[in-house]
Amino acid sequence: MPSVIIDMSPSLDGYVAGADVTVERPFGEVGLRLHRWIGLDGAAPTPVDEALAGRMFEGAGAVVIGRRMFDVGIGTWGPDGAFERPTFVVTRRPQPPLERGRTTFTFVTDGVEAALAAAGAAAGDLDVVIAGGADVAEQCLATGQVDELRLHIVPVLLGGGTRLFARGLPTSMELRLTDQVASEHALHCTYRVEHRPG
Amino acid sequence: MPSVIIDMSPSLDGYVAGADVTVERPFGEVGLRLHRWIGLDGAAPTPVDEALAGRMFEGAGAVVIGRRMFDVGIGTWGPDGAFERPTFVVTRRPQPPLERGRTTFTFVTDGVEAALAAAGAAAGDLDVVIAGGADVAEQCLATGQVDELRLHIVPVLLGGGTRLFARGLPTSMELRLTDQVASEHALHCTYRVEHRPG
Repeated sequence: MPSVIIDMSPSLDGYVAGADVTVERPFGEVGLRLHRWIGLDGAAPTPVDEALAGRMFEGAGAVVIGRRMFDVGIGTWGPDGAFERPTFVVTRRPQPPLERGRTTFTFVTDGVEAALAAAGAAAGDLDVVIAGGADVAEQCLATGQVDELRLHIVPVLLGGGTRLFARGLPTSMELRLTDQVASEHALHCTYRVEHRPG
Repeated sequence: MPSVIIDMSPSLDGYVAGADVTVERPFGEVGLRLHRWIGLDGAAPTPVDEALAGRMFEGAGAVVIGRRMFDVGIGTWGPDGAFERPTFVVTRRPQPPLERGRTTFTFVTDGVEAALAAAGAAAGDLDVVIAGGADVAEQCLATGQVDELRLHIVPVLLGGGTRLFARGLPTSMELRLTDQVASEHALHCTYRVEHRPG
């Protein structure tokens, strides 16, 4: 059974980007710190981190991201567009599809449910990975369609920025920790969504 | 060297109590869920949980808590007052000390730094444990005097309630994960505060 998976790197205090995200600084003032474990912040990833980064999109047939993530990311993702598979961008502004190597960006203007449906169709028997940002990830969670949360919890308190889980979900959700492995750069946790109370 | 330690049980989305905390429901509507790992929510703690719960105050010579935690907790803590050591309550309302068995509650009206100083003096060579609530814990963190964070991350998304780290710290803080062990009820993490940038 393919899964719908959220994969994000929050700080221990729950921020996925620092304050002041701009195109010039896609993760804000201190946000690159959150991606040290994949080598974006100078320090070398550990073997544990490298193995996990390599598996991030391994089983994924399609990716869902938010418009802001696309806007601040596209300039840095290079000719391959980073995701190397069909990628659906949740946005209010219609735009023709964009190709970057094996990554095709399709802009979905009718909400996260439509984006998840399109991604699911494109993925076939493979997983759908929601790679951010926080707002789209939480909208997807609220639909009840997310099966798995992969959080790479970074050992830093940022004190501010873009918060994951800022919206508040409409209901509480029981999870089950199915995997956890730590490096000096992140505590990598996998949670399955067990129960979505009504 | 004695340490100043924050010990709390947040949900994965960062809440330490559910919505609507009252004296009748000290953790709010869904908040007892967060304390299942210490047996407060019906289910039996696992051996891993029991061992950790037993060690929670093991090295502690004094405890610091917030006024709201005291108010909603005192009716449930029984004749021993739960903490069994000098306990300092951060409050704006002066009140004579209160004894409950080996727990002495002292009400400190001049802020968290004064409470930490009094607790440190009472603890001597032992640790000071800040047991909650969220606001007092974060005020303590902001003083730069906290050495260790012990978070028992509960595998549930509450969607609302009292948020740990709601204030936002004045600066970012680097941490180091020194210990982690999981049960079905919580991912028990110990972080040392490594660096407090100015």
